[in-house]
Amino acid sequence: MMPNFNRLVRFKDSDGNIRYGEAPSSGSLIGSEVAIYKGTEPWNLNLTKERAIISKVLAPLSHTPIIYGIGLNYKTHIAEAGWPTPPYPTIFTKPSGALNGPFSTVSINPQCTLMDYEGELAVVIGKDCKNVSDPAEALEFVLGYTAANDVSSRYWQAPEISGQQHGYAKSFDGFAPIGPILVSKTAAGPVGDMVLVTRVNDEERQRAKLDDLLFGVGDLIVHLSRGTTLKAGTIILTGTPGGVAAFMKPPAWLKTGDTVEVEISGIGSILNEYVYQ
Amino acid sequence: MMPNFNRLVRFKDSDGNIRYGEAPSSGSLIGSEVAIYKGTEPWNLNLTKERAIISKVLAPLSHTPIIYGIGLNYKTHIAEAGWPTPPYPTIFTKPSGALNGPFSTVSINPQCTLMDYEGELAVVIGKDCKNVSDPAEALEFVLGYTAANDVSSRYWQAPEISGQQHGYAKSFDGFAPIGPILVSKTAAGPVGDMVLVTRVNDEERQRAKLDDLLFGVGDLIVHLSRGTTLKAGTIILTGTPGGVAAFMKPPAWLKTGDTVEVEISGIGSILNEYVYQ
Repeated sequence: MMPNFNRLVRFKDSDGNIRYGEAPSSGSLIGSEVAIYKGTEPWNLNLTKERAIISKVLAPLSHTPIIYGIGLNYKTHIAEAGWPTPPYPTIFTKPSGALNGPFSTVSINPQCTLMDYEGELAVVIGKDCKNVSDPAEALEFVLGYTAANDVSSRYWQAPEISGQQHGYAKSFDGFAPIGPILVSKTAAGPVGDMVLVTRVNDEERQRAKLDDLLFGVGDLIVHLSRGTTLKAGTIILTGTPGGVAAFMKPPAWLKTGDTVEVEISGIGSILNEYVYQ
Repeated sequence: MMPNFNRLVRFKDSDGNIRYGEAPSSGSLIGSEVAIYKGTEPWNLNLTKERAIISKVLAPLSHTPIIYGIGLNYKTHIAEAGWPTPPYPTIFTKPSGALNGPFSTVSINPQCTLMDYEGELAVVIGKDCKNVSDPAEALEFVLGYTAANDVSSRYWQAPEISGQQHGYAKSFDGFAPIGPILVSKTAAGPVGDMVLVTRVNDEERQRAKLDDLLFGVGDLIVHLSRGTTLKAGTIILTGTPGGVAAFMKPPAWLKTGDTVEVEISGIGSILNEYVYQ
């Protein structure tokens, strides 16, 4: 899987047209004039000679078949919490409607209390795959990487409320903002060199190096593709490190107007305001 | 939601064309000559004067955005197992690729051991809905009912393997056969009058009346649509009664060549052979 882009941005131009472009390697996205790609999906784009100015940054995917989430995947976090090391990744899902933009509001149903964040590296699959048995070979199906917030209502995630299933609490519309750009595997360099930082209202809450993942990107694809077709556009959230609101004393649940920023080195930041409906 | 059909069958005719038709109220589907509907989806069909002969019965939906599964939803089963009554439905998902035909083979990855069945009533949503608060009103979004087998690999469902998440063990390609027809809400009559029977190689394993559901169809739609758009074509599996292989002593895991039949009164039977790859 060798996509045509290095740093893909999906955006609205000043006329309101939705376009794909090659993002600058640094500086603000808004206001940048970028080269335009033509094509329907991030995995079948062709560079044009056209250019356009970014007016609004959108999620790098317009839609997704499904979003897989991974529980407990940072070694340091597992050790400090005293949890046993799981033999396989813990898998839950968020449906397609959870997808949200990098700077969009997270609009929250009033019944979704005890609101939290989980800063995560997201992997986007670029080509259908199934029964991939080798983690190194699995990376061939990766289109690129982006930042994500696995937005969670801990009320609905409580074991006695959820029957211990993580998905429901994380599946509400707009509970998976991603972006701001999709960095190709080649342009991204080694995942282990990336650093993830989450901030709430500018206060740092999570910081981790991605070399601390228990199950790496290849391992996750091997596990998820076992007997199962992973379709192009599938998003895999790779898990979150320590520092979520639920484990603060007392828990610092998010309220209307709070902003959550997830920054990953080489990718940039998403910043979403939480607003109760 | 008033669909145009009573008993919808999706099928191949003798020329191999895929069609929607009005199924006969009794007797064999194969070989029947039926009136044809035109349209792309079961919720936007129009009756024609054309007729065709059913050569092969397909799943009543060609695709689905997502399949929701419900754990622990038969009152008798919860009581006899001594489990506490859950305050809300327990939710997991099966992705779109799990969808399978009513008489298709369930093709099993060799790593999916301890294979089981769960006979279930499936509900198909016919119109996008969100934040439906009243269970009676929720039924307006039901297109119809069909039979389903929530095929499960208990190896992957074991708490220490799955991190207690039910979805992964049930998400493999083809692990959600449904059919043989989709009966409209009106034609189906009260869900509580339906009887579900599951047979393995003709031996009865599960039998339950649908009036034993802890969370009824309306309750499930209220819960699943909270803050979340349920898209047309979404399938809700309503849970399984007692009698699965896992709780037999010793557990009677399925092997290649075993067939599982799920029959629901007024809907008919699906019959799927399990075959290890």
